[in-house]
Amino acid sequence: MALPTKDLIDLEFLTAEEIMEILETAKPMKDVLKRKIKTVPALRGKTVATLFYENSTRTRLSFELAAKYLSAGTCNISSSASSVAKGESLQDTGRTLDAMGTDIIIIRHNMSGAPKLLGEAVNARVINAGDGTHAHPTQALLDLFTILERKGQIKGLTVTILGDILHSRVARSNIWGLTKLGAHVRVCGPPTLMPTEVEQMGAKVYYDIDEALEGSDVVNVLRIQLERQQKGLFPSIEEYAKCYAMTEERLKRAKSDLLVLHPGPMNRTIEIPTAVADSAQCTVEEQVTNGVACRMALLYLMSGGGQDE
Amino acid sequence: MALPTKDLIDLEFLTAEEIMEILETAKPMKDVLKRKIKTVPALRGKTVATLFYENSTRTRLSFELAAKYLSAGTCNISSSASSVAKGESLQDTGRTLDAMGTDIIIIRHNMSGAPKLLGEAVNARVINAGDGTHAHPTQALLDLFTILERKGQIKGLTVTILGDILHSRVARSNIWGLTKLGAHVRVCGPPTLMPTEVEQMGAKVYYDIDEALEGSDVVNVLRIQLERQQKGLFPSIEEYAKCYAMTEERLKRAKSDLLVLHPGPMNRTIEIPTAVADSAQCTVEEQVTNGVACRMALLYLMSGGGQDE
Amino acid sequence: MALPTKDLIDLEFLTAEEIMEILETAKPMKDVLKRKIKTVPALRGKTVATLFYENSTRTRLSFELAAKYLSAGTCNISSSASSVAKGESLQDTGRTLDAMGTDIIIIRHNMSGAPKLLGEAVNARVINAGDGTHAHPTQALLDLFTILERKGQIKGLTVTILGDILHSRVARSNIWGLTKLGAHVRVCGPPTLMPTEVEQMGAKVYYDIDEALEGSDVVNVLRIQLERQQKGLFPSIEEYAKCYAMTEERLKRAKSDLLVLHPGPMNRTIEIPTAVADSAQCTVEEQVTNGVACRMALLYLMSGGGQDE
Repeated sequence: MALPTKDLIDLEFLTAEEIMEILETAKPMKDVLKRKIKTVPALRGKTVATLFYENSTRTRLSFELAAKYLSAGTCNISSSASSVAKGESLQDTGRTLDAMGTDIIIIRHNMSGAPKLLGEAVNARVINAGDGTHAHPTQALLDLFTILERKGQIKGLTVTILGDILHSRVARSNIWGLTKLGAHVRVCGPPTLMPTEVEQMGAKVYYDIDEALEGSDVVNVLRIQLERQQKGLFPSIEEYAKCYAMTEERLKRAKSDLLVLHPGPMNRTIEIPTAVADSAQCTVEEQVTNGVACRMALLYLMSGGGQDE
Repeated sequence: MALPTKDLIDLEFLTAEEIMEILETAKPMKDVLKRKIKTVPALRGKTVATLFYENSTRTRLSFELAAKYLSAGTCNISSSASSVAKGESLQDTGRTLDAMGTDIIIIRHNMSGAPKLLGEAVNARVINAGDGTHAHPTQALLDLFTILERKGQIKGLTVTILGDILHSRVARSNIWGLTKLGAHVRVCGPPTLMPTEVEQMGAKVYYDIDEALEGSDVVNVLRIQLERQQKGLFPSIEEYAKCYAMTEERLKRAKSDLLVLHPGPMNRTIEIPTAVADSAQCTVEEQVTNGVACRMALLYLMSGGGQDE
Repeated sequence: MALPTKDLIDLEFLTAEEIMEILETAKPMKDVLKRKIKTVPALRGKTVATLFYENSTRTRLSFELAAKYLSAGTCNISSSASSVAKGESLQDTGRTLDAMGTDIIIIRHNMSGAPKLLGEAVNARVINAGDGTHAHPTQALLDLFTILERKGQIKGLTVTILGDILHSRVARSNIWGLTKLGAHVRVCGPPTLMPTEVEQMGAKVYYDIDEALEGSDVVNVLRIQLERQQKGLFPSIEEYAKCYAMTEERLKRAKSDLLVLHPGPMNRTIEIPTAVADSAQCTVEEQVTNGVACRMALLYLMSGGGQDE
């Protein structure tokens, strides 16, 4: 078995089996990361390009290191770079990367749908590293991996996604992945930050954090993206923190083995106070390691690893 | 035989035989690009630095990947970087790269003549990746390679270079290369964008595109560089497009095997409409691939490949 | 023997023996740099990250190439990058690099003390590449190496550090290193740019350059950092140059084998006129090469080279 499509646009288009294959492949990749010598030759002679129209050190670096640990060649193109500034279309930029011998293009774009457009224009395989408010499948994969590793299974777990659901591609991709793998998904946030279609995706909506956390096995605390949000969606940061922060008190009232996920970077003064951020139940650093492992797995599988070679 | 000078400043200073040697060496390099595993160890343990005082993702990336496919180490220095900002002279920056063990420096600079100055200051070999309005020899090499591959020979062909000849280092380097290899070169563009010395270089001047295209085997459509041009050189973009765009109608009236080159990135609404850009006669993507191959050939030859080792 | 602490924050915390071990290890590293094939596999499978909150092409590149010559994987994070812009704390950024499998973090920061803070937060080993006005230990190491190579020994030499001592982390780290290795250290500059604690560190203060140079074996000419300095500390650049530039006349009056060091990039119109900059007594380019060699030595020793493996 291998991925069904040339590109990875979202978990929406994968089956539970395909998601599980990626997660299973990520396990030995994580072992590689723990070694003294962290490189394997799996992608020697392949080229991975990161094409980022939105800044993201964290995600770009995770993909870049994943590629390097697999011995791929890497190159980075950022939105401030000139072909982009010169007004070249996304498709022409993609075709140029294609013509230069790129095997896999990792794209982040502020417009939802850009990775799909790019994928249709190029021969290289495309991985969506976050597009607008649409999807962020590799973040969801690493969240699933983290839950699976800590809890042993995903089926039957109750997972609450907490925060600004409306603008969150992390939330959307998590809902697809979690529901496919059999988790009960709750979403919780202010009514002004709750998209209308979320219940059709299989999630249950909560506006009260304490109700949402009751009985939850996992909470995925989203980052308040001050830089993305339009004004006026909630009264103030202080008000938001009071109603929706994952505080130490809430942690104490929750299940004793509640897992606290956060995609990072953390706002320690807003959605996740330091006492929780630094607790043993918070997996923020494990998630970073797991992110590299999941991206290694994906690059490996999308380069033909484990199948046709 | 090998290159006669330490640095590659322009095709002006190479003989037809030397140009042909680079093009012949580029052929097996292109084969490497088509393999599943695209790296060869030819430049293992060598260091190639790109020193770009002007933005250019496309050219920088092409050189960077060419170096990586040959297993060279690479490093990038851009004009926004600090030593440059701190007012260090070009020569001192070059000597620093020298002292750090750089073998080849690829320089792009907005001042004509900068690569020559740099080359005189350093022990490393220098490749001009475009200097002001002077020269862009590797673009000319890839254009020559593309014509040779598609047409089988260059001698005797009629090649029209179309657009803003005055500001075009691509045009100048192409004229040197094409005339040395025996092509008949026509240049065509608005009188305000036509340099006075172009006829002495061996090119025939046309102001009417349809006259220029009549009997041409190849047209090289230059990019209208909106960001470089001073105002007032032609009435408007619309006016320019009307008189000098390589339209579908003009393509139909031309020789049926007319080859359409473009250095990219393309302005699909100005000099090269989409119907032509996406036609089988347009080589814009092949040129990108050939650019990597020609740069690999050059790096290989300039590192001593095929001669003294 | 090996380094006594996880991190290299300053030479203040090393013994003379430990400093000498680094300098001795740098010798064979410099030999590697002179080879045709400049890479050795010592750090294969290790990852070195440069985390620069202040621009510095020169230092960043030196570390990056040092890592590459040792076959380490490298990645660069600069202050304009997004996690930093998103307000993530230095510690969280460091923990993220840790979690991604980084072995050594090279940090430059405009705040004195930042490398120490970072080192306490991460498992990776940290190297200070310059913090505020505090320390720049690898610059001092390469200065020591250069003196040692040219003079055969450091003990007993008289070394004058010339310029803006107050704002100079280069001066501070040099004073620690030179006094530990037995040199007599003089510091010379305008009274307004002389820190009060410098005599307690073991240096003798001079305000007259000609007095300071008399009997000196080495002068280390600091760069006037126009971008760092607050206004009003000296009347004008011209005034400074008149009183404290290392002129050709002063070179002629000094010991005939006076060595002139400069950390670069040079202001050839201010502190070091071209006649001196380009003289055989000036070691500015050797220092660049020696900087790569010393950084290779440090990366090698901090990766466990020469000890526990």
